[in-house]
Amino acid sequence: MNNFIFYSPTEFVFGKDTEAQTGTLARKYGARRVMVVYGGGSAVRSGLLERVERSLREADIPYCLLGGVLPNPIDTKVYEGIEVCRKEKVDMLLAVGGGSVIDTAKAIAAGVLYDGDFWDFYVGKAVVEKALKVAVVLTIPAAGSEGSGNTVITKSDTLQKLSLRAPGVLRPVFSVMNPELTYTLPPFQTACGVADMMAHIMERYFTNTKEVEISDRLCEGTLMAIIEEAIKVMKEPRNYDARANLMWCGTIAHNGTCGVGCEEDWASHFLEHEISVIYNVTHGAGLSVIFPAWMTWMTEHNVEKIAQYAVRVWGVPDSGDPKAVALEGISRLKEFFSSIGLPLTFKELGVEHPDIDLLVSNLHRNKGEFVGNYVKLTPKDSKEIYQLAL
Amino acid sequence: MNNFIFYSPTEFVFGKDTEAQTGTLARKYGARRVMVVYGGGSAVRSGLLERVERSLREADIPYCLLGGVLPNPIDTKVYEGIEVCRKEKVDMLLAVGGGSVIDTAKAIAAGVLYDGDFWDFYVGKAVVEKALKVAVVLTIPAAGSEGSGNTVITKSDTLQKLSLRAPGVLRPVFSVMNPELTYTLPPFQTACGVADMMAHIMERYFTNTKEVEISDRLCEGTLMAIIEEAIKVMKEPRNYDARANLMWCGTIAHNGTCGVGCEEDWASHFLEHEISVIYNVTHGAGLSVIFPAWMTWMTEHNVEKIAQYAVRVWGVPDSGDPKAVALEGISRLKEFFSSIGLPLTFKELGVEHPDIDLLVSNLHRNKGEFVGNYVKLTPKDSKEIYQLAL
Repeated sequence: MNNFIFYSPTEFVFGKDTEAQTGTLARKYGARRVMVVYGGGSAVRSGLLERVERSLREADIPYCLLGGVLPNPIDTKVYEGIEVCRKEKVDMLLAVGGGSVIDTAKAIAAGVLYDGDFWDFYVGKAVVEKALKVAVVLTIPAAGSEGSGNTVITKSDTLQKLSLRAPGVLRPVFSVMNPELTYTLPPFQTACGVADMMAHIMERYFTNTKEVEISDRLCEGTLMAIIEEAIKVMKEPRNYDARANLMWCGTIAHNGTCGVGCEEDWASHFLEHEISVIYNVTHGAGLSVIFPAWMTWMTEHNVEKIAQYAVRVWGVPDSGDPKAVALEGISRLKEFFSSIGLPLTFKELGVEHPDIDLLVSNLHRNKGEFVGNYVKLTPKDSKEIYQLAL
Repeated sequence: MNNFIFYSPTEFVFGKDTEAQTGTLARKYGARRVMVVYGGGSAVRSGLLERVERSLREADIPYCLLGGVLPNPIDTKVYEGIEVCRKEKVDMLLAVGGGSVIDTAKAIAAGVLYDGDFWDFYVGKAVVEKALKVAVVLTIPAAGSEGSGNTVITKSDTLQKLSLRAPGVLRPVFSVMNPELTYTLPPFQTACGVADMMAHIMERYFTNTKEVEISDRLCEGTLMAIIEEAIKVMKEPRNYDARANLMWCGTIAHNGTCGVGCEEDWASHFLEHEISVIYNVTHGAGLSVIFPAWMTWMTEHNVEKIAQYAVRVWGVPDSGDPKAVALEGISRLKEFFSSIGLPLTFKELGVEHPDIDLLVSNLHRNKGEFVGNYVKLTPKDSKEIYQLAL
């Protein structure tokens, strides 16, 4: 087991009607002027935005609004938000939405207190040393951004989709999580969230770090819970308990609970980012295409942990042939993804003729000669994995 | 799933040589004058105390010392510590030790800023609203106090062993956890720690709250990891990875990761506290006697979750007869406890003739007419459970 720091200071306030506490929580965490960041119309249509605003008014906290964050969020909205925050002297960003909204709020929070271009943080030209406080009212269990210090933004002119990790400063101070808010998510978006949270765990689980039994068990247990609850949610979208279990799984998948003491991988995420940045697909759908392809490739190159996953998560009998066991596990994962409506190939993703050479060259331009850790992928390897997803 | 708050703001700095960071961490968290609290001679003999003091000196943090905390810690040491803290104007308590030391430090931290008797907090006469900061260098994985807001203290004149929960103010700001510090723990103390951390999980796992799959899976996974790693540690006390896995299990068993959204039980802990306060046995050893007795009694009164535990944690085949399945699970737990040197009966605990009527009457005097939640125990029930442990 490697040395590690576990630090998850976010206060998660979880359950029915919890959005009514938003104003009180913002006050508790010292907000004097809030900017509420949100996306498209669903937060407005559902009445959630109005309830959150009411809660802020009841707590006597002045606020301004920044709507219109798109999925796969882009830099232009961040620049807009930074400007408004400076003008309005905002000291807390309140993200009402899913990962795109939260990630945009984090980027703004870091950018407001920085003299240069916020994009410097994403390309590694500067380190985030301070940021405005970020808080969350979560509406989509998927990205785990409500409990992480990470943010992913796309630079619209260069088509770079890059992630930034600044857990010391960018973790939300509080996250309000009401599973009822997820009742009306379209089935496809629910399923994409499932793929995303499973991927967050698997990026940590597939590691060469030995003797990490507690990490393995937490990862496996969370994956098993996600699978079981996702099946229920797809059948009964208004099943509170299933929605609640799934929502909490999404958080612990990414707040550091899973994968302590392990070298993490993240190749599948990076392989996917290149797809969504060019073809504008939903991140989770891209992952349900890429992750099984990555795992299949791994059965030839580093099979051990894939086989353990098959046995412990999917209950594949351990026949003593790790490759066969692993392939059976992958087959069950694909069956599961398919059963909840997720694509398994580029074609099913709606990308009939992906430009694989472009994907590979962008990937290694952005991430360097080698990508990932479980096996350090060369451009030749990345190409083979993309091809397995055709 | 019930509404819940998950809030675990402690920064856990985990791994080899991490105690050298103590001074830097104390400075990061604003300490200006520290009181180092410790127990008997082992922290001195091992050189740990000297290394921690050096780290504080290197960070230019003045400190004073309070040694001599006993297992099953008592109020008199708390009063002593409060007095010293006030005189020396201490603003951070640094506990170097296990649960007794940490719990004493927390009691002092709360008491210093309170005008009345700190014991008021434990008997529910007052609520802890503020406290000095507490930090930890952990030497015994067992109590989980390094990640919890709880403390248990015994009032020496009335023989009341009572717990206090104040998660908003008493959670350590940081906990330094070096598994190497546990290499020299005597086997019996290691085993008692194992029973304690398993009990912390089982107190949460045995619940009537339905549809808590993610909580169940996290509890089961952590229990399985503890069992596997404990067996290794008993055989190879200097196996770093096994010690590391076990140490982290002890933390997540009690920092709130396990049991989110569940009504918790805690009857077994309360049944045990009455034993250790009268017979001064080690808490974990008392638990290894009481918990199987409590579970055995439950097979007659609320078998469902005990049977699930047997199947999922111990791999007992599900025969369709929950009572038989549950009893087989309990039998495997007892076999495991026995194999690592833990007692299973009062006699093995060294208490030949326990005064069960006294235990029962003290228990219900301290905890009220009913104890626990999985089944609300009456004095008659408590007596039957104690008798099952004879």
